[in-house]
Amino acid sequence: MRNSFGSLFRITTWGESHGKAIGVVIDGCPSQIEISEEEINQKLQKRRPGSKYTSSRKEKDKVKLLSGVFKGKTTGCPISLIIENTDFDSSKYEKTKDILTPSHAKFSYLEKYKIFDYLGSGRASARETAARVAAAAIAEKILEKEGITVLAYVESIGDIKVKNKPKDIFELKKSLETSQIFCSDRKAEKKMILLLQKLKKEKDSIGGVVSFLTSDLPKGLGEPVFDKISSRLASGLMSIPGSKGFEIGNGFEAATLKGSENNDLFISERGKIRTKTNRAGGVIGGLTSGMPIFGKVAFKPTPTIGKKQKTVTKRGKKATFELQNVKTHDPCIAIRATAVVEAMIILSLADMILLNKTARLI
Amino acid sequence: MRNSFGSLFRITTWGESHGKAIGVVIDGCPSQIEISEEEINQKLQKRRPGSKYTSSRKEKDKVKLLSGVFKGKTTGCPISLIIENTDFDSSKYEKTKDILTPSHAKFSYLEKYKIFDYLGSGRASARETAARVAAAAIAEKILEKEGITVLAYVESIGDIKVKNKPKDIFELKKSLETSQIFCSDRKAEKKMILLLQKLKKEKDSIGGVVSFLTSDLPKGLGEPVFDKISSRLASGLMSIPGSKGFEIGNGFEAATLKGSENNDLFISERGKIRTKTNRAGGVIGGLTSGMPIFGKVAFKPTPTIGKKQKTVTKRGKKATFELQNVKTHDPCIAIRATAVVEAMIILSLADMILLNKTARLI
Amino acid sequence: MRNSFGSLFRITTWGESHGKAIGVVIDGCPSQIEISEEEINQKLQKRRPGSKYTSSRKEKDKVKLLSGVFKGKTTGCPISLIIENTDFDSSKYEKTKDILTPSHAKFSYLEKYKIFDYLGSGRASARETAARVAAAAIAEKILEKEGITVLAYVESIGDIKVKNKPKDIFELKKSLETSQIFCSDRKAEKKMILLLQKLKKEKDSIGGVVSFLTSDLPKGLGEPVFDKISSRLASGLMSIPGSKGFEIGNGFEAATLKGSENNDLFISERGKIRTKTNRAGGVIGGLTSGMPIFGKVAFKPTPTIGKKQKTVTKRGKKATFELQNVKTHDPCIAIRATAVVEAMIILSLADMILLNKTARLI
Amino acid sequence: MRNSFGSLFRITTWGESHGKAIGVVIDGCPSQIEISEEEINQKLQKRRPGSKYTSSRKEKDKVKLLSGVFKGKTTGCPISLIIENTDFDSSKYEKTKDILTPSHAKFSYLEKYKIFDYLGSGRASARETAARVAAAAIAEKILEKEGITVLAYVESIGDIKVKNKPKDIFELKKSLETSQIFCSDRKAEKKMILLLQKLKKEKDSIGGVVSFLTSDLPKGLGEPVFDKISSRLASGLMSIPGSKGFEIGNGFEAATLKGSENNDLFISERGKIRTKTNRAGGVIGGLTSGMPIFGKVAFKPTPTIGKKQKTVTKRGKKATFELQNVKTHDPCIAIRATAVVEAMIILSLADMILLNKTARLI
Repeated sequence: MRNSFGSLFRITTWGESHGKAIGVVIDGCPSQIEISEEEINQKLQKRRPGSKYTSSRKEKDKVKLLSGVFKGKTTGCPISLIIENTDFDSSKYEKTKDILTPSHAKFSYLEKYKIFDYLGSGRASARETAARVAAAAIAEKILEKEGITVLAYVESIGDIKVKNKPKDIFELKKSLETSQIFCSDRKAEKKMILLLQKLKKEKDSIGGVVSFLTSDLPKGLGEPVFDKISSRLASGLMSIPGSKGFEIGNGFEAATLKGSENNDLFISERGKIRTKTNRAGGVIGGLTSGMPIFGKVAFKPTPTIGKKQKTVTKRGKKATFELQNVKTHDPCIAIRATAVVEAMIILSLADMILLNKTARLI
Repeated sequence: MRNSFGSLFRITTWGESHGKAIGVVIDGCPSQIEISEEEINQKLQKRRPGSKYTSSRKEKDKVKLLSGVFKGKTTGCPISLIIENTDFDSSKYEKTKDILTPSHAKFSYLEKYKIFDYLGSGRASARETAARVAAAAIAEKILEKEGITVLAYVESIGDIKVKNKPKDIFELKKSLETSQIFCSDRKAEKKMILLLQKLKKEKDSIGGVVSFLTSDLPKGLGEPVFDKISSRLASGLMSIPGSKGFEIGNGFEAATLKGSENNDLFISERGKIRTKTNRAGGVIGGLTSGMPIFGKVAFKPTPTIGKKQKTVTKRGKKATFELQNVKTHDPCIAIRATAVVEAMIILSLADMILLNKTARLI
Repeated sequence: MRNSFGSLFRITTWGESHGKAIGVVIDGCPSQIEISEEEINQKLQKRRPGSKYTSSRKEKDKVKLLSGVFKGKTTGCPISLIIENTDFDSSKYEKTKDILTPSHAKFSYLEKYKIFDYLGSGRASARETAARVAAAAIAEKILEKEGITVLAYVESIGDIKVKNKPKDIFELKKSLETSQIFCSDRKAEKKMILLLQKLKKEKDSIGGVVSFLTSDLPKGLGEPVFDKISSRLASGLMSIPGSKGFEIGNGFEAATLKGSENNDLFISERGKIRTKTNRAGGVIGGLTSGMPIFGKVAFKPTPTIGKKQKTVTKRGKKATFELQNVKTHDPCIAIRATAVVEAMIILSLADMILLNKTARLI
Repeated sequence: MRNSFGSLFRITTWGESHGKAIGVVIDGCPSQIEISEEEINQKLQKRRPGSKYTSSRKEKDKVKLLSGVFKGKTTGCPISLIIENTDFDSSKYEKTKDILTPSHAKFSYLEKYKIFDYLGSGRASARETAARVAAAAIAEKILEKEGITVLAYVESIGDIKVKNKPKDIFELKKSLETSQIFCSDRKAEKKMILLLQKLKKEKDSIGGVVSFLTSDLPKGLGEPVFDKISSRLASGLMSIPGSKGFEIGNGFEAATLKGSENNDLFISERGKIRTKTNRAGGVIGGLTSGMPIFGKVAFKPTPTIGKKQKTVTKRGKKATFELQNVKTHDPCIAIRATAVVEAMIILSLADMILLNKTARLI
């Protein structure tokens, strides 16, 4: 699938960090969805964690809608979205172009392709994910019709963890609206911000965990056996730069429990069958159970840091690397990744909703 | 992709637990690979954790090779493998067919398809994964040519964790050969076996974690941005029944570290560039770095247990469920899952090796 | 796609002419379709042009249904169909194995794969298409629900052409039921049979044209711009062994007409819009117009003939080739191809019907 | 595949006739190919049949290269090409927006999507194909490395057919360079031009046939059984707007011949095996034989004509339609289609060349 994601609602992203633009083509979007350039931009704006604790590159990121929409509605034809790259400075990359940045894609891309666009990390830059977020703004319309909400938030940064968790998705939504770093717990947030400020001074970075939560879902989404909802989400979320771990439901905790402890028992409430608990995170047998999906994604610390690190050049000569334009790099990618985690879940669910329309002949 | 996995080396599995047979079609296997029915069966046998601590269903699992091989070599045409279902007893499923087994696929399949083959869980049975293991026996030939070894082993069962880890893949391989439950640490193994025996008496089950490790790999495998090696592995491994979490490299630990702590520094050794440490688990920028890939998969406890559990029927009436034919169910799916974890990694790597042949025009 | 055809309703065929079996896996078939092994076999039987004018290999071709159906209904899980190879004699192929049969796949397969299963042409045998016909027996159920009929018939053999054409698909269906060679015109049929008898004596073969016709179709089937209904049909039909040409509607004749002559004018009849004429063959802008689809497929003469032909060996040495086991080869592949033409159209339409369910959000 | 074509070298096109732009994303292009914006534009220019006998819309069609190329070479990352729409007048479409243009996509798109961008036919406009031609300019680089040339030319317009055919592809290439309408035969060309002028006066259009020819090809391209080279070409060429028929090699003529007449006998020349004749059009068993591929595509006359035609409105009321802005419509789409026929063959071959790299393990 390379640069495409999804089966029926399929996106193809393109573009490099310091190229002319980045963008995405959405193929398979149903017709009759009301959408406008403005609405997409508003959603992007809302999702953009443009605080002082994320990269200060002023990505105005105005999305242009180039095709697939006529008189305010999707036509069923491919939708092309484009975001021009404007605020960047490529000059600093030339002198380190032969130095292998530690834990950075330059090395592996060079091994694979024998060429690497080293300006702002080119295609390997997290900037690529803006196209996913833009596409998700349209996919979200399919979810809205089913009354589905998807949220992602910062669960931990370094050793600082969220403690007081909102009791449901509505409370979570509210609490995130006033957060500077997409964290639902004000106390934890304060500590996190202090840590981020300290790290910025140290020219270092830090890892973090992003949690996600949805509202109740339609039942039966997901396609056995290789496109289970858990498999598709894992695929989407582990394609986000810097992701190193994934959990659905209670995740690794489930591996420590007995069956009698871990099972979610079925109950009937007002004529509807649901589970009493939801340790599974809304997934049974790889399909949605109707209960909310929740889980976590672990992000490593940003590898490109201002601190001096030992490394070698492309030809194996000893060298050192220290990031110059620190201000354009997030000290903690988990914060900004919340928007991308939401996007990948939204895109996955939209696709699964469409696929599900063909599950039965009835 | 539903019942297919892979892009160039693509498998399509089929079959239900108590149907006539299960099987797999491999499309895109290169020609000129020496393989025989016997060799596939030997590999399966070796991988089969047929100890007394796994299900005692006597799955003789003799694979028949029906196509795609001529005079001992693959021809480039699709390879069809079939395993007949022989040793099963469907009689016990009739009386519980309307009862929703807790945390079991019956509920979600019924919601999706309005029909469910409830005999031995039908398609949702882990038996389906035998077809993946059979296909991997052929995919492994592509890896062998590159000198690649892939191993998976039991890292923990419940709270019991492996402590002494083998220093490399060769030692690991040796230690697994004499293990009854695919565990590399004899001390841990003993405790695990005691726990399994206790749970069997209690008619309960337990979760577990499977770790995986490869030898050094070719560099540059994986396809940015959505088929990163980490993404593809996550997709494959999270499609295994019962999997709830995935880590590549140090996984969730990375989320607690600083960049200066987590980065793997490049060094040059005897003219070759490698990383001094390998916290990343062999993945940089979503592509293989050449270092061994390692990581973990969390498995929940087997949901179908002998202990009596409260539940409801398909129509919402109160009911209880207790598994009758306990002996055919593994108390800990993680043990048997080791073979499937290996299979999914092998299949992913074989596909990535083929895809990589088209990365450059040279 | 290699050995797979279709997007949502996707078949994957496998097997060689003289291997143990051939078969097909159907992935993406909706649940709730009533189907039985018997019904599939009946359909196959009806489609089988087992007259004395086609190959006399007694392909009993009993399909076994191995998965995906429970209590008489499809479950949404992959359906595996298998046909054992029984009546064949491989002995005659050994002595000609190094001789390049003129116009035969042996040469190009050897160039591609460096290995070729030469027994009965292996995978390149038209026998592979039996798996497509079996799969179509299930796909047809999706069409039946929409009231769609698909027919293919012999339009010409050599220079002998059908003259009196049935006025609609019902009359066509009737006329084919009593034909020995799937031809709707008794006069032409007689001449064709005489020609076939003459050619059999001459140890030669002959080309032919197959026409196809459907009943009225749902409107809007097909996916712009690369999966237009015409494109998908062309792809499917030109994948049948021996096909050399394809027409939809008036085909090459359209290239000789003026717009004012060729256009099909819209009219309104009893509140429904249709076209007055149907030169387009039921396709407008690549989508179905609702009118019947019709067109043609040209088949070359069977290349393997009993007549002695000059050729060379794999190593370029001069040689001659004359087919020994003449009786197992059809003198005119077009006759038997009618069933495969129907199958590929049925499979294409079933897929397009499913795809169309996701065209609009409504 | 909808708006994507190809398996490894995969293009996704987007854009409407009167939208802001059209474009294409190429995914899977190997790295290390030298290419520039200028070169793509030169190729487009050369291919553009901008004579007075085609549409006079001044499509300057300057392609912008937005991604995937760094320092003059492809990087292996997706290549985004965009062509802004500049010279168009949408005003004339409003008053006919509810009238069903005869034999035009408006009807079937409305049936499928319940919405249609009627400005210049939106997505159904042949303008979409410019994106394919742009993508082919890059794919062609992969062919050039193998020394492959692909040419398409006008074989007939109405009843006027080319008589003197060039003896090989080099002569053909030369003869096309001086043609106004991509026709190799000067005598035929003159008659064709007279016919076109006459039709323009009559406000009518005319059909035509495009022939294609390649130089010698690598052997073994194509993927049995559903992606045979003939199947893939048919799929690609029948996706071009207005195409109604396809032939490979001698096509429908093969259906009239005996096996002994139609077979291409193998010979050995200077140690190389080839066929004496090439009736098959370079395809044996669905794979390339190494001989040149040739064949034909039939195009219907442009359906939108200036002549007054009877039709109905979307709601079934009687109406008439006569094209107003005649000058922007080609009287014969076959002429301009030559560039698209070349493009689709080039794209197909580039993909097949990449796929072939994985055919054998060797």
